[in-house]
Amino acid sequence: MLRPIITLTSDFGLRDPYAAEMKAVILSINPDATIVDISHCVEKYDVRMGAYILAQATPYFPKGSVHIAVIDPGVGTERRPLLIQTDHGYYLGPDNGVLSLAVIADGIQHVREITNSKVMLSHVSDTFHGRDIFAPAAAHLTIGTKPEEFGPETSEFLVPTFATRTKRGNSLAGEILYTDSFGSIVTNFTKENLREMNVHDCAEIKISNRKLRLKVRRAYAESESPELFAIVGRHGFLEISKNKANAAEALNAQIGDKISLTTD
Amino acid sequence: MLRPIITLTSDFGLRDPYAAEMKAVILSINPDATIVDISHCVEKYDVRMGAYILAQATPYFPKGSVHIAVIDPGVGTERRPLLIQTDHGYYLGPDNGVLSLAVIADGIQHVREITNSKVMLSHVSDTFHGRDIFAPAAAHLTIGTKPEEFGPETSEFLVPTFATRTKRGNSLAGEILYTDSFGSIVTNFTKENLREMNVHDCAEIKISNRKLRLKVRRAYAESESPELFAIVGRHGFLEISKNKANAAEALNAQIGDKISLTTD
Amino acid sequence: MLRPIITLTSDFGLRDPYAAEMKAVILSINPDATIVDISHCVEKYDVRMGAYILAQATPYFPKGSVHIAVIDPGVGTERRPLLIQTDHGYYLGPDNGVLSLAVIADGIQHVREITNSKVMLSHVSDTFHGRDIFAPAAAHLTIGTKPEEFGPETSEFLVPTFATRTKRGNSLAGEILYTDSFGSIVTNFTKENLREMNVHDCAEIKISNRKLRLKVRRAYAESESPELFAIVGRHGFLEISKNKANAAEALNAQIGDKISLTTD
Repeated sequence: MLRPIITLTSDFGLRDPYAAEMKAVILSINPDATIVDISHCVEKYDVRMGAYILAQATPYFPKGSVHIAVIDPGVGTERRPLLIQTDHGYYLGPDNGVLSLAVIADGIQHVREITNSKVMLSHVSDTFHGRDIFAPAAAHLTIGTKPEEFGPETSEFLVPTFATRTKRGNSLAGEILYTDSFGSIVTNFTKENLREMNVHDCAEIKISNRKLRLKVRRAYAESESPELFAIVGRHGFLEISKNKANAAEALNAQIGDKISLTTD
Repeated sequence: MLRPIITLTSDFGLRDPYAAEMKAVILSINPDATIVDISHCVEKYDVRMGAYILAQATPYFPKGSVHIAVIDPGVGTERRPLLIQTDHGYYLGPDNGVLSLAVIADGIQHVREITNSKVMLSHVSDTFHGRDIFAPAAAHLTIGTKPEEFGPETSEFLVPTFATRTKRGNSLAGEILYTDSFGSIVTNFTKENLREMNVHDCAEIKISNRKLRLKVRRAYAESESPELFAIVGRHGFLEISKNKANAAEALNAQIGDKISLTTD
Repeated sequence: MLRPIITLTSDFGLRDPYAAEMKAVILSINPDATIVDISHCVEKYDVRMGAYILAQATPYFPKGSVHIAVIDPGVGTERRPLLIQTDHGYYLGPDNGVLSLAVIADGIQHVREITNSKVMLSHVSDTFHGRDIFAPAAAHLTIGTKPEEFGPETSEFLVPTFATRTKRGNSLAGEILYTDSFGSIVTNFTKENLREMNVHDCAEIKISNRKLRLKVRRAYAESESPELFAIVGRHGFLEISKNKANAAEALNAQIGDKISLTTD
C-alpha cells in the first residue's frame, strides 16, 4: 500500500491533545500514513462501547488497514499490549476486550503480545500507551516491520462477556451493546443466535421490563413509521429500530442493559 | 488534480462511527483523496443549518473540490440523490435543499440524479446513503468517472423556503439561517435584497419582537463595542453582530426565527 | 519535507465551519500539506488553556512542523500577528501569549511580525485572521517562502503571567494551567522551580484552601491507588494526579486557580 491507513478509536474526548500526540508520533515514523479518526468520544473507560464502534467501522476500510483502539483503564498494570492480525487487517490495543468484536467478526489469524521495545517510543510512560506503544507500533507496521518482530504469539486473550450470550431454558440472555445518536438499539445477539433460537418472522424480546413482540424486518424500508421492529444490521447483530424515530428513547434503553430473546 | 479534495458535512455527531465509514469507503476507491470535515455537528435533521454551514465553507476550497452533505431525514424514501456541478465544484447530497445555498451562490451548471449503480456500494441500504451512495459516488468522481455517467440531468430540484424571502408591503420577511458559537446572527437577506429595499446606512430590523435600527457597517472594525450593528458578511448574507460580544444571546435569537427588514 | 505538517489549535468548537475554512485556504496554497487538528475545543478566549494544549502536543511532531494557534479575542485590534521560529519548528498566532509556553520550551530562535501581504489572503477581514493571515502564511512557509520574507524581526512579545511565578518568602505562587478530561491537574511550576525551592521527596502545596503534603513520584506506577501524588510531567510542569481517579474533582480544582508551593 502506498498510503497506508491507520485508524484511531479512543475515549480521549475532543479537548485534550492526546489524539494529536498519537498522530504526531505516527507521522514522525511514517509521514505518508493516512490517519482516520473513528471516534474519540467513546464514554471514558467503556470498553464495550469502544469495541462496538470499532467493529462497526472497520469492515469498510481497505484490506490491510491498521486499527488502534485505546480505551485502556488498566494502562500501567500487567494487562498486555496486543497486535492481532485478522483476515482483513491489523488491530492494536490493550488485552481488555476492546478489540474482541472486530477481530472475531474479521476472523483471527495471529495474536501477538507487543514486547519489542524497538517498535515503541524510547521512553514508555505508565499512563499513555496509546502514544508510547500503540501509535509507534502501528506506524512501524506500515513501514515494513513484520508482525513476527513485534513479540511472541499468544493463544490467550480476553473475550469479554459482551461478546457472549447465556442460554437459560427457552430464552437467551444478552445485553445492549450500543445505542447510536439517532436512537437505534444494537444488541449482542447474532444472526446465528436467531437461527439457534428458531426466531424467524417475529422476535420476542424482554427489554427494560417490557415484553415486546417485534416483526423481524429484512430491510428498513419494509417498516411503516412509527412501528418498532427488529432487524439484523450489517455487522450481524440484532438491532431494535423505529422508522424515523428514536427507539432508545421510546424504550428508555441504555447501553449495558440486560435483554433477552425468547423462542416462539 | 493530484490529490483531490472531498469534504463532509453531516448531522452524525462525533461519537458514532458513521463519518469514519464514509471515509473508509472513499479511501477504498481513491486512496489519494484528501478528506476534510466541514462539520458533523449540524443539529440532527436540520437541513437549513447544514445548508448554511456548507455554503459558508465551500468558497474557500480549491476549484474542482467535491462536497458531500448528508443531513437526510428522508433517506430511504423517494427523495432523489443529486450530483450538482457548479462553476466552482461538485456537490452530492439528497434533494432536500441542503445543497441549495452553496450551489446557488456558486452558479449552477448541471443537476443530475444519481442513478448509476456502478458508482454506489454493491449493497445500498435504506438507512445510510451517505456511506452507500454519496461517498462512493464522490470518490468515483475523483478517479475519472464523468458526471454524465452518474445519471440523467434534471431541471427540478428543491429550493427550500430558507433560500427565499417574501415581500409584504414595505417590508421583507425572512428568517435566521444560523447563529455561530461566537454569537453572530446570520439572516437570509442578501446584498441584493438590501439594494431592492433601499437599505443603505441604516437597517430597520424586526427580530424577537423587538424593532432595531442598526447602522450598516462596511467593516467590523468600524464598530465600537458594545454596539449592535448590521453587516453584509463574506457570503453575501446580512448579519447582526456585536463587537466582541454575543449578539444572539443579547437578542435571544434562535435559528429559524422570523425576521423582517423595513425600508427607511 | 515532502509532506509538511501544519497543526491547528483553536477555540472554534466543532459545529462552525471555521476550522474547515482554514484547511481550505491551506490546501489551496499547498495541496500536499498534512493538516492535524490538535484541538478546537479550547474554552472560548482562554489563551492560557490554548497555550498549554499547544505546548503539550507540539514536542511529539517532527522537526520543522508548522503550528497555528488561533485563540484570538483581540482580533482586529493592534495586537500583532507573529511567526516564531524555534529549535524545533514554526509557530504562528496572535501576540497574546498563546504561543508562549510552547516556544519557550522549544527554545526561541527568531520572532517576526507578519506584515507581508503576499503571504495573506487578498482580502483580510477584521474578524478572522486564522483564515485570512495565519492559514495562508503557514501554507506559504511550507512551499518555500523564507521566514525573513514574512516581516521584520521583533524583540518584544507578550509573556503572559501564566508563564511566570512569584516568590513570596519561602513560598512560590503559581496557578493551575490545565485540568484534563481524566482529572490530572497541571500547574505552572517547572522542574527548575522545584530545585530552587528545595523540593525533593515531598511537596507542600496549597490549593483550593487546602494544604497538601504530597509525595513526589518519579513514575505514575510508583503510586498506589487512591493516593494523591505530585509528579513532573513530560513537559516539565508539576502535576497533581490520583492513580486511576479524578484528582481535579477530588480537590475541586479549576483552571486558573491560585496554587502555592512551600519549601520543606
